[in-house]
Amino acid sequence: MNPLTCPLPVFDTETILMGHGGGGRLSADLFRNVFLPAFGNSILGRADDQAFLEIGGARLAFTTDSFVVKPLFFRGGDIGSLAVHGTVNDLAVGGATPLFLSAAFILEEGFPLECLRRIVSSMREAAQRASVQIVTGDTKVVEKGSCDGMFINTAGIGIVDTHLHLSADQARPGDVVLLSGPIGDHGIAILAEREGLSFEADIVSDTAPLHSLVADLLATGATIRCMRDPTRGGVASSCNEIAQTSGVGIQLEEKAIPLREEVRGACELLGLDPLYIANEGKLLAICAPEDAERLLAAMQRHPQGAGASRIGSITSANSGLLTMRTALGATRIVDMLANDPLPRIC
Amino acid sequence: MNPLTCPLPVFDTETILMGHGGGGRLSADLFRNVFLPAFGNSILGRADDQAFLEIGGARLAFTTDSFVVKPLFFRGGDIGSLAVHGTVNDLAVGGATPLFLSAAFILEEGFPLECLRRIVSSMREAAQRASVQIVTGDTKVVEKGSCDGMFINTAGIGIVDTHLHLSADQARPGDVVLLSGPIGDHGIAILAEREGLSFEADIVSDTAPLHSLVADLLATGATIRCMRDPTRGGVASSCNEIAQTSGVGIQLEEKAIPLREEVRGACELLGLDPLYIANEGKLLAICAPEDAERLLAAMQRHPQGAGASRIGSITSANSGLLTMRTALGATRIVDMLANDPLPRIC
Repeated sequence: MNPLTCPLPVFDTETILMGHGGGGRLSADLFRNVFLPAFGNSILGRADDQAFLEIGGARLAFTTDSFVVKPLFFRGGDIGSLAVHGTVNDLAVGGATPLFLSAAFILEEGFPLECLRRIVSSMREAAQRASVQIVTGDTKVVEKGSCDGMFINTAGIGIVDTHLHLSADQARPGDVVLLSGPIGDHGIAILAEREGLSFEADIVSDTAPLHSLVADLLATGATIRCMRDPTRGGVASSCNEIAQTSGVGIQLEEKAIPLREEVRGACELLGLDPLYIANEGKLLAICAPEDAERLLAAMQRHPQGAGASRIGSITSANSGLLTMRTALGATRIVDMLANDPLPRIC
Repeated sequence: MNPLTCPLPVFDTETILMGHGGGGRLSADLFRNVFLPAFGNSILGRADDQAFLEIGGARLAFTTDSFVVKPLFFRGGDIGSLAVHGTVNDLAVGGATPLFLSAAFILEEGFPLECLRRIVSSMREAAQRASVQIVTGDTKVVEKGSCDGMFINTAGIGIVDTHLHLSADQARPGDVVLLSGPIGDHGIAILAEREGLSFEADIVSDTAPLHSLVADLLATGATIRCMRDPTRGGVASSCNEIAQTSGVGIQLEEKAIPLREEVRGACELLGLDPLYIANEGKLLAICAPEDAERLLAAMQRHPQGAGASRIGSITSANSGLLTMRTALGATRIVDMLANDPLPRIC
């Protein structure tokens, strides 16, 4: 049996597992088997990171994310900046200009007000940098022991040009996969903080807003099929989703994938595959082959894309699968993970 | 010293208290001292239940709420229907037609999938009844013991007629206060469920969408200044907010406030004031005096307003305060509560 076409294992569980929030196969199962059948509509069915809405003549993007990252503060950011960047980025990768955010807090009784002030101040700075306004909010408090310090939800609204149609179902054989910079920084930074690990060189989260990089790419007029910010589940999960949704194969070149030496070392030490590690300020873009070079050049001109690289291509073979040609020349399947190697990284 | 003008006590705390989520004075303090200075913009500064946004020629309302109700299931509803109604109502009381909702779940590891299915199914029914679509979502999972079963955030977008200008700062002396029906059902239903209390007659949550009642009221063309759904903190907190924001006094007539005998009895038994108890399907409307009768009649014609009543009026005296003429003819101040008599009711 061709290993590329053998059926995927089926997961059956009666209770929620950590992996249901991991952005991998269990998350996808939950979406397909519980949420989509219940709420099913053509907008939700797109299963992208944002919904596109037509309201009163305007074309809007709408998205939401809850943040449960642990610990709340880490090298390079905190739950506040992450909550702003995460929602800004989900709008931006849909081609939308992020405009307005909501912010809803669930706080644990006894949470230090000083920590809340720091987090709120970090949200303010992140919102200013991303040119969005936080316009509505909510605060709930639960008894001590009923939540882990604080959780934040942000929802966001952006405006989209009516001619744009970026979606995970748009990738076509021959298309090129671009990545804006080195992977795994965020996940490894969180893990290091959480476990008290100190790596030789400190690894800092890449949490950042992508709206400006995206605006530069859109301004080139290049034919972009789809963009993603590869957060939970990493580049592997985002590429798997695109392959499945577009019904194409994606082949990555291991040697071309940007990766810091420190992150590579930490992953080797910890037995983690950087392809599955979360990023919070990286952009994955699929574009038409004839536009790949100038789109890559535009990425590299932007400070957040200085480490950009062409990491792979779309194939008609291996439909629905992500494969990688390893440094040694072998080809392996990079499956969606069932469970979550690094829970609560966002 | 006139008790009506004595300064309000000041609260100073270094940690989050349950009352910071109670919708009373500590909530207002947190908003004014932490969130508003950080995020400050003219839209957030309105401090209403929803933000009004102008995007691409459309006038939109945008709102968010997290739901941490305990228990998850109660007589008359569950966290799912509550999460839909809560956000639908925050849009509706701004005069918006609710259109689209996001749904973000924080689930505890080990949460029964069957319970999730029930809650999601309840959300679907509530969304259908309110004619809204759930178009985007998110799921996070935290370790067992890190949250209380599940929390839900919903954010919502609605469209508003450009000529409407409903806001808590619009109340004027002489205006009339209308209420759509009996108060306290939701809070007491939750409390009964939580504490295993069984009252002689079972009390059922009033959780319901208000969009249709609001549409009927707007269709009358009456001059409505402001509407609220008096949830956390009850009618007392909503009226206090309006009095403070408009710089007017509000005087309620105790005898005119609709209240079920069972709820009155439960409140007496438990030492609770029904004016502070949460409602999840009641509408408070402030309108011009000349339109009060026909607006009340329109309320009463709607099934959800059958128990509607004219409960008070706006005064120039006692600016910023809510007072109540009691059944015995005395007048008392109904202050904003500092702490939360009934935490986690939504």
